[in-house]
Amino acid sequence: MSDIDNEDRARNRNDDATHDIYAENGSVRADFLALVGAAIADRDVLFLRQHVVRLHESELGHLLEAIQPDQRMALIRLLGADFDLTALTEVDEAIRLEIVEQMPNAQIAAAIGELDSDDAVYILEDLNKEDQEEILAQLPFTERVRLRRALDYPEQSAGRRMQTEFVAVPPFWTIGQTIDYMREEEELPESFTQIFVIDPTFKLLGIVDLDRILRTKRLVRIESIMRETNYPIPAEMDQEDAAQIFEQYDLLSAAVVDDNGRLVGVLTIDDVVDVIQEEAEEDFMRLGGVGDEELSDSLIDTSRSRVPWLMVNLVTAFMAASVIGLFEGTIQEIVALAVLMPIVAGMGGNAGSQTMTVTVRALATRNLDIHNAWRVIRREAGVGLINGLFFGIVVGVVSGFWFEDANLGFVISAAMIINMFAAAVAGIAIPMVLDRTGADPAVSSAVFVTAITDIAGFFSFLGLATWWLLR
Amino acid sequence: MSDIDNEDRARNRNDDATHDIYAENGSVRADFLALVGAAIADRDVLFLRQHVVRLHESELGHLLEAIQPDQRMALIRLLGADFDLTALTEVDEAIRLEIVEQMPNAQIAAAIGELDSDDAVYILEDLNKEDQEEILAQLPFTERVRLRRALDYPEQSAGRRMQTEFVAVPPFWTIGQTIDYMREEEELPESFTQIFVIDPTFKLLGIVDLDRILRTKRLVRIESIMRETNYPIPAEMDQEDAAQIFEQYDLLSAAVVDDNGRLVGVLTIDDVVDVIQEEAEEDFMRLGGVGDEELSDSLIDTSRSRVPWLMVNLVTAFMAASVIGLFEGTIQEIVALAVLMPIVAGMGGNAGSQTMTVTVRALATRNLDIHNAWRVIRREAGVGLINGLFFGIVVGVVSGFWFEDANLGFVISAAMIINMFAAAVAGIAIPMVLDRTGADPAVSSAVFVTAITDIAGFFSFLGLATWWLLR
Repeated sequence: MSDIDNEDRARNRNDDATHDIYAENGSVRADFLALVGAAIADRDVLFLRQHVVRLHESELGHLLEAIQPDQRMALIRLLGADFDLTALTEVDEAIRLEIVEQMPNAQIAAAIGELDSDDAVYILEDLNKEDQEEILAQLPFTERVRLRRALDYPEQSAGRRMQTEFVAVPPFWTIGQTIDYMREEEELPESFTQIFVIDPTFKLLGIVDLDRILRTKRLVRIESIMRETNYPIPAEMDQEDAAQIFEQYDLLSAAVVDDNGRLVGVLTIDDVVDVIQEEAEEDFMRLGGVGDEELSDSLIDTSRSRVPWLMVNLVTAFMAASVIGLFEGTIQEIVALAVLMPIVAGMGGNAGSQTMTVTVRALATRNLDIHNAWRVIRREAGVGLINGLFFGIVVGVVSGFWFEDANLGFVISAAMIINMFAAAVAGIAIPMVLDRTGADPAVSSAVFVTAITDIAGFFSFLGLATWWLLR
Repeated sequence: MSDIDNEDRARNRNDDATHDIYAENGSVRADFLALVGAAIADRDVLFLRQHVVRLHESELGHLLEAIQPDQRMALIRLLGADFDLTALTEVDEAIRLEIVEQMPNAQIAAAIGELDSDDAVYILEDLNKEDQEEILAQLPFTERVRLRRALDYPEQSAGRRMQTEFVAVPPFWTIGQTIDYMREEEELPESFTQIFVIDPTFKLLGIVDLDRILRTKRLVRIESIMRETNYPIPAEMDQEDAAQIFEQYDLLSAAVVDDNGRLVGVLTIDDVVDVIQEEAEEDFMRLGGVGDEELSDSLIDTSRSRVPWLMVNLVTAFMAASVIGLFEGTIQEIVALAVLMPIVAGMGGNAGSQTMTVTVRALATRNLDIHNAWRVIRREAGVGLINGLFFGIVVGVVSGFWFEDANLGFVISAAMIINMFAAAVAGIAIPMVLDRTGADPAVSSAVFVTAITDIAGFFSFLGLATWWLLR
């Protein structure tokens, strides 16, 4: 292929690639992907510098997820030092690991020096100890100490998510001095919304929001406009608890302190938003019987991770089956029972899962506590009774006509009422009890609720039928 | 009761109430509630001023939720003008409505003038048109115009959630002028993190973060440090889309513009965090078959709101039952089939709900798109096959031994494999198809997936049994 061809193609590519990279439906535009793919194949570094380097880190992340796996490393190699490592904080864990493992440690070390410490920790924490050490060893001293300290905090703690770069000033400085300092100092964090007031031992005295500084005259002292922080976050605190504080008090950032109340970092709302998303996602997934899986997980990993939940369900399914087994004789006499019994069990399961969903969510958001528990339990039991009555009658009438047997209709009505009441009670009691015992209600509620609605459904229906229809 | 008693009691109360209002488990401390309750009964305004007025708006909101319904209005009356209306943005909708309806419009109007416009809109939008107008009429002109404009935007739009107070300066001002303006001007928003640069017609030219202003020398012009905003948010944009932009680009606040690109307000991250929470909650609740209900809803409202989903499920349950009805003869011959058939259907339902959960979540977070759809579909089908094989063998062996019938074991094995494969395909295909047609996959996926796993489960098991065991 001639160089001229190449140049022509590169020119066309540039004309086509200057718009928004997203299509209407939110995925990366197919033509942009094609252009990037072609540029990678042609090793068209000029194009990549112009159209890929300019992308926001999250856009670059989406691009990495959208291109073919074998193009990813090629793209990163072509970008070289221009590759913004922050993009890796925006991709699926499996893809991040795949990329980081293929990148030479020296390149990671060079790039990680450019990152905010929270992003650096985010990437480093997934690596094995050996690679971590090799990378850390190549960093400047202060950088290394900071990252090591953050990595020493437990996983999922505020200390892991915090940024160790912040602006801190003594209380006796004036606004003028503070502004002059910020104008002169070169080593400020990339962006910040408040500054901290500390004593010589780094003990946190207070916080000043930037808008407060800008409204205040030069001669005023910092200590007279600082406010005490009511919510300094201990570095060991779980990130979920820290997120709850941010949410409740509408914070933009918060000081993270060590055991001695010394300022060690700052937690910012953008990281907290990610935590909130993750936590909501976790509950959603767990209630559906799936763990921390990601779309990029492999077939085998996914299969294996879903087995335990299915296995527990299988045990309860056999328990329910053995309840049916008690009534084999009855079913042999009246086969209609076998036809109708899944309706009783299934409707109980659905009603139970409604109550359970509300309860699990209310517990997660701490809206359900001792002050309103009894009211909510009474309400749910009432809902179970009312809807049990309603659907009991509907199902009874339909079944009675279907099998031309009024007695069968009465039996299924009664069984429905019993089971939907049992479902309501199980749906609220099981998550609450699990929560009390310290277990996560989202993980195991569904299994128990289904077990109860199945067993109560089969037992009440087949039991009543045996007693009433086979008199 | 003597006044001295009363004073004594009030003194004790003050000593007890000076700590954190939350207990370990995150609910409001019972003793604090008791103190507040007693103070309300004694009309101890002094105590309430000292210990309730100082609370953060979200703490006051929690307190309002935790006390008895009849204490709420009494507390608000005792606090009078000291009651911070913002607390109402933190309570359940039903409680908010109950309180607002009992408060005189004049008191609401007086209090609403103190609020940020986004909080004011949040409270006003739930009122009926008449009350809204009466309250708006009592507000100063500019305030009234601003709130009306925000209320004119569609529900759940960025225009409804935005704050109409912001700082905007012309591009030719210097940093010095800008800082001096902020020092002199009294009518600034309560807090802000960036200022906007506009032309004389209010067209948005750019944005400057406060930390940028503080690092820059006084003589520099605003236009030379402002950055273009790549993501101005149209006021009509759905709040969910706006939240997605905040999240992707880690914004703290964003300009909201009208059709002509004129700045009309600012959307801040604290409101967006609430939107993110709401959206995650919505999907969670919908997948569990419950709508927008709240813990404070009445028994009747709750029962009624849950009927439609149960009704749809009932229809599919009867469909599944009629499939069983086709095989009445077979069941009469081999009652063991009736005992085992719920296992086949139930395990399919569980496997299907795992796949469906992953799919619904991936669609909601836009992680599943045309670029990876085929890979994910293939993976899920593979997971269905592998887990189908595994559980098919387990169930087959157990059932074979239980009923001492190897052929029965083979039949249930085969049915399990078929149904778990069908469950996987349904679990991914149904949400994707619903999403394509513009329906919300979280609302109706569960019904369809269960219908398919029930019908496929019963049909494959009873059909195979009829064909193989009754030869």
